[in-house]
Amino acid sequence: MRIKQTQSGASREQGELALLAAIRQRASRAASLGKKGGLRLGIGDDCALLTPRAGEELAVTTDLSIDGRHFRLNWHQPEAIGHRVLARGLSDLAATGARPVAAFLSLGLPRSLTKAAGRRSTWVERFLDGFLALAKAHNTPLAGGDLAESNLAVADIILVGVVPRGRALLRSGAKPGDLLYVTGALGGAAAGLARLAELASPAKPNPPHIPKRLENLLAPHLYPQPRIAQGLWLQRRGLASAALDLSDGLSADLAHLCEESGVAAEVDAAALPIHPAATLAQALNGGEDYELLFTAPPAARLPRAIAGVPVTRIGRILKARAGRPTMTLISPQGAKPLEAHGWEHFSQ
Amino acid sequence: MRIKQTQSGASREQGELALLAAIRQRASRAASLGKKGGLRLGIGDDCALLTPRAGEELAVTTDLSIDGRHFRLNWHQPEAIGHRVLARGLSDLAATGARPVAAFLSLGLPRSLTKAAGRRSTWVERFLDGFLALAKAHNTPLAGGDLAESNLAVADIILVGVVPRGRALLRSGAKPGDLLYVTGALGGAAAGLARLAELASPAKPNPPHIPKRLENLLAPHLYPQPRIAQGLWLQRRGLASAALDLSDGLSADLAHLCEESGVAAEVDAAALPIHPAATLAQALNGGEDYELLFTAPPAARLPRAIAGVPVTRIGRILKARAGRPTMTLISPQGAKPLEAHGWEHFSQ
Repeated sequence: MRIKQTQSGASREQGELALLAAIRQRASRAASLGKKGGLRLGIGDDCALLTPRAGEELAVTTDLSIDGRHFRLNWHQPEAIGHRVLARGLSDLAATGARPVAAFLSLGLPRSLTKAAGRRSTWVERFLDGFLALAKAHNTPLAGGDLAESNLAVADIILVGVVPRGRALLRSGAKPGDLLYVTGALGGAAAGLARLAELASPAKPNPPHIPKRLENLLAPHLYPQPRIAQGLWLQRRGLASAALDLSDGLSADLAHLCEESGVAAEVDAAALPIHPAATLAQALNGGEDYELLFTAPPAARLPRAIAGVPVTRIGRILKARAGRPTMTLISPQGAKPLEAHGWEHFSQ
Repeated sequence: MRIKQTQSGASREQGELALLAAIRQRASRAASLGKKGGLRLGIGDDCALLTPRAGEELAVTTDLSIDGRHFRLNWHQPEAIGHRVLARGLSDLAATGARPVAAFLSLGLPRSLTKAAGRRSTWVERFLDGFLALAKAHNTPLAGGDLAESNLAVADIILVGVVPRGRALLRSGAKPGDLLYVTGALGGAAAGLARLAELASPAKPNPPHIPKRLENLLAPHLYPQPRIAQGLWLQRRGLASAALDLSDGLSADLAHLCEESGVAAEVDAAALPIHPAATLAQALNGGEDYELLFTAPPAARLPRAIAGVPVTRIGRILKARAGRPTMTLISPQGAKPLEAHGWEHFSQ
């Protein structure tokens, strides 16, 4: 499909025309990525065309990001916003065990973010820098989208991936007796966000400078890594009975898994791979870690790491029973119900 | 994929939870539509799964609609906004000659639009009424999306369709000598919008009541009909050399076709099927008619109507030549350059 733009023709400003041309050019430079992956036609027509191979299913996901809720123009550098917007979508493909084929991006932006100021890059160019760097790392061409002027900055990301028919990882396959696993570390994104909130100033329109010494601490929040390779590995080995990505936080996402699978779960607090900078509460309830949470039968042999990312057993799946909490947290102090705590991103 | 929601768990309001459940229920009631069409898994997981048949390509398009630009909360009834949001996406599939398989909807809405007031339907329920009625008319299940609170109402529509491999209608295939055709009537949407603007009051927060006698006049604007059946007919017969939908207006969209095909065109003003309520300027430059503009070789025999919608020959394709305008308008007064005039939706 084409990158479209609301105000066209004579009324369109030169700067916006140039922006459209630039996106198209940058996307087509990266489009060779898609040739072998099934993208036959990208930006420039009414629709993009994807050609899956025989026996492949298409996985499709959309995620809407809004200024003040999923990011803040005065907290986040544009590169980080571009990265995070795409990471949200890629993470859904990872949780499905799908290989990315194409991304589509609908952007609504205030005019000020598309205007050039001298020789410096515009906000949207820097946004695309972050977006396209992550897209390249995961061989995901930008195949289309839409562009409109908006008083509020919004970005809707659409990802299309492929997975062999019947092999997709779903939320609904967990069985009592299965063991519960997670990739990577938990709570790092929430800890990074808390630190970023301290650095940001409500009085300033621009995001804070991130001192070199804090880059590592903020990375899980600013530049989360979608677990595409790990999801593909699990899908190809057929080891996982259910999977999803940790976007809302462990407690909320485990509740989703239990609900869709019709099971209960217990989590061993001592086993949780808590990020060094995070608290237990952040590991349990902090969102946007974008790690994979998955279940596997006890007989499945899981390695300690998949494609360089640790895999940790953190609990097990139980039968759902009336009168028993769906989720239980086991700690040295005993067992207590684990409640699903939502992730609020930013309060407004 | 699941219909997701930003604020989850304990912080999520009862009304929003109920909204999510209602969307899921309404979408799954309609999901049987998708079973034969290739949608294997809809709302409820990280991704939706689509299973195309051998030899099919997937067509994907996204369109972002924003309050104040593509619709106005104080001009348009929610049902009309829901219809128009989906019509924009379906029209792109029509222009590609694709059969719709699944729709995805990302909604960012102010809280007031999701809140119930007594027994009356909420704004978002009425939006879905309009959306799902058109979805049903075109056998298009709502397969997923995203939902977030937003100070500005935004709706991103994603459509996925299928088309036999290599048979998609593109913008790039027009050849000198081809004849230029359009479905339906031109300018009706712009004429309807002009009348709606007179009825609407900037002082009032609610859209105006549409008197019965004006319903027909406003229909092309409020309830445009995507030409899915006509696009499929052209694709199956293999008659069209190029096609696109009239979203920006004839002059702007013909310019797109000429650019992508590397050709020029002349339009016969006397032949234009101008909507009875519209002016020539509205027929040439008014957007959102969502008719199909297409080209076919002179030898192609086109009927006077396709699936009940008139087809009119309005001009022909010429060789692009330096020093000659890309588009020419022929009228009894002679030939003059036809300039691409953009469609501004609403000025802000």
